[in-house]
Amino acid sequence: MRKRPAPGAGQRAELELLQQIRRRARPGGPVALGIGDDCALLRSRPGEDIAVTTDLSIDGRHFRLAWHPPESVGHRTLARGLSDLAAMGARPLAAFVSLGLPPTLINPGRAGASWMSRFYDGLLSLAKSSGVSLAGGDLAESPTALADIVLVGAVPRGKALLRSGAQPGDAIYITGTLGASAAGLARMADRTIPLKPDARLQIPSSWVPMLQAHLYPQPRLRQGAWLRTHATASSAIDLSDGLSTDLAHICQESRVAAELDSAAIPLGPGATLDQALNGGEDYELLFTAPPGRRVPARIAGVPLTHIGRIVRPRRGCPAMTLLTPAGSRPLEPRGWQHFS
Amino acid sequence: MRKRPAPGAGQRAELELLQQIRRRARPGGPVALGIGDDCALLRSRPGEDIAVTTDLSIDGRHFRLAWHPPESVGHRTLARGLSDLAAMGARPLAAFVSLGLPPTLINPGRAGASWMSRFYDGLLSLAKSSGVSLAGGDLAESPTALADIVLVGAVPRGKALLRSGAQPGDAIYITGTLGASAAGLARMADRTIPLKPDARLQIPSSWVPMLQAHLYPQPRLRQGAWLRTHATASSAIDLSDGLSTDLAHICQESRVAAELDSAAIPLGPGATLDQALNGGEDYELLFTAPPGRRVPARIAGVPLTHIGRIVRPRRGCPAMTLLTPAGSRPLEPRGWQHFS
Repeated sequence: MRKRPAPGAGQRAELELLQQIRRRARPGGPVALGIGDDCALLRSRPGEDIAVTTDLSIDGRHFRLAWHPPESVGHRTLARGLSDLAAMGARPLAAFVSLGLPPTLINPGRAGASWMSRFYDGLLSLAKSSGVSLAGGDLAESPTALADIVLVGAVPRGKALLRSGAQPGDAIYITGTLGASAAGLARMADRTIPLKPDARLQIPSSWVPMLQAHLYPQPRLRQGAWLRTHATASSAIDLSDGLSTDLAHICQESRVAAELDSAAIPLGPGATLDQALNGGEDYELLFTAPPGRRVPARIAGVPLTHIGRIVRPRRGCPAMTLLTPAGSRPLEPRGWQHFS
Repeated sequence: MRKRPAPGAGQRAELELLQQIRRRARPGGPVALGIGDDCALLRSRPGEDIAVTTDLSIDGRHFRLAWHPPESVGHRTLARGLSDLAAMGARPLAAFVSLGLPPTLINPGRAGASWMSRFYDGLLSLAKSSGVSLAGGDLAESPTALADIVLVGAVPRGKALLRSGAQPGDAIYITGTLGASAAGLARMADRTIPLKPDARLQIPSSWVPMLQAHLYPQPRLRQGAWLRTHATASSAIDLSDGLSTDLAHICQESRVAAELDSAAIPLGPGATLDQALNGGEDYELLFTAPPGRRVPARIAGVPLTHIGRIVRPRRGCPAMTLLTPAGSRPLEPRGWQHFS
């Protein structure tokens, strides 16, 4: 399919914007060659494996143009990829983002900055604070707004934290608190918050922490790197789909079962236990540690909490059990269901 | 955004399909860890740079569901990424594909195989013949069908073929022939071919080569690798956007000008000179070679043709000139205009 648009004022503004992004995404560090050639060139250190993850975000499914400010969509797009690197204990080398947008979101609006420009503001701000460069990507017109993020990282060979290393007897830990992202989303879904991209928000101050958790989650890169460097974890995963679903991935890949203590699960601001178990998008890390392994109370300011244990799988018994003051019950994976 | 679909027959069929894809995309070679963890892990050789490229393909812009068979969309999606690696002389390590599809294309149709399954048939068939593994990706429901391809490759440090190395006096070469892809697309656009995904084609045999060129282009990985290994090329680019536009990229990045001999440009089956200059999607390589450098007549069966030369840029003169029997004229970039 070819299309040869006549270069108009809109396209010139857009090319100028892309030149700005190229300048802001200047290569350096592990990026030997950035935007402008057929490929970007990245440089890892001797003895490192290359970690690669891709995550597709689509309007109406992973975000909503009517709810999420563009800066948040940019931030969340990058956070999803960084969180996958964090879960492996990898250090980021570079990010790539493919963006498909309706022309109205590419061109500057009456307010000045275009949706796309504000998307990049959010993405590049998190990129800067995470020490990762934007090294390329693609942009195309699309009836549906979408962003596909690629993160390339590096990890010493054979040292990546995997989903498959948990053993019966290991303790289960998480970083931070759970459920605030789902609580924030629920407030937005109730339409109690007029969260239009260009609207000034009139929200109760008690809602700020959960909205913050939902709109601007912080991937746990430093915590993942610490766990890998100190050989603390036997397995790890990031909590993007929800505790119940992500723990099920650990159980499946490690061929083990798990018990969680419901009272031990640290709830985020405004969150219910159900949101902590099944809400997802907290982008905290879950990891397992062998018995006797020293686990600190916090890493880089983020608390770690012991929430359960890995047990031997038994035929006819559920893979995951939730222990509550009222007794135990099977825990089903009820978080985000991927196709893959 | 969370969604918890109840697992129905459609979803089960789809999960089964994804298990099949996972089995067919089995890791090996440079893929130390494939689909199933937070990231894939790839292994390059000591002293190599990592080359990364991403390309977004969207229904209605890069392909049409009504025109392109799903196998062709899968093939072309991967070919776009492989061609970028070829242009740098990189060897592929792994491919990742993020797919956004309406549910009707994910679920099996009455004919049995789903559009998605046939997409992967086309993609994995080219992956196999190109020696590259599918190491991951993402899948999501999307109102608009789209595929984002990521290719990760490796190239000896400092040896990648770049767009920026052309010098005045260098000769300009291309692999293969140009314009057949655009000629094939023009036939489809004329609606003279009822090219519906499930229709038996009734097409004149003379159209087969151009349709083949459009639907199943062959990326020039072996040719790019040969040029790099033999230090033949001073610069290179793949002809995805069209000769006029891609040569303009070389002129811009190398800060040079260029002359093309129109009579020397090898036209593909059914192609006009305009299609060869501006059509794009031929996925041949354009490269420059310093004077006196030996350039073979063909590499791995594909002919090389000398079509022009790099000259010094002059203020007030066009960056590209087409020399024809009737005289010379400025050559404008009239191929595919990227946003970036």
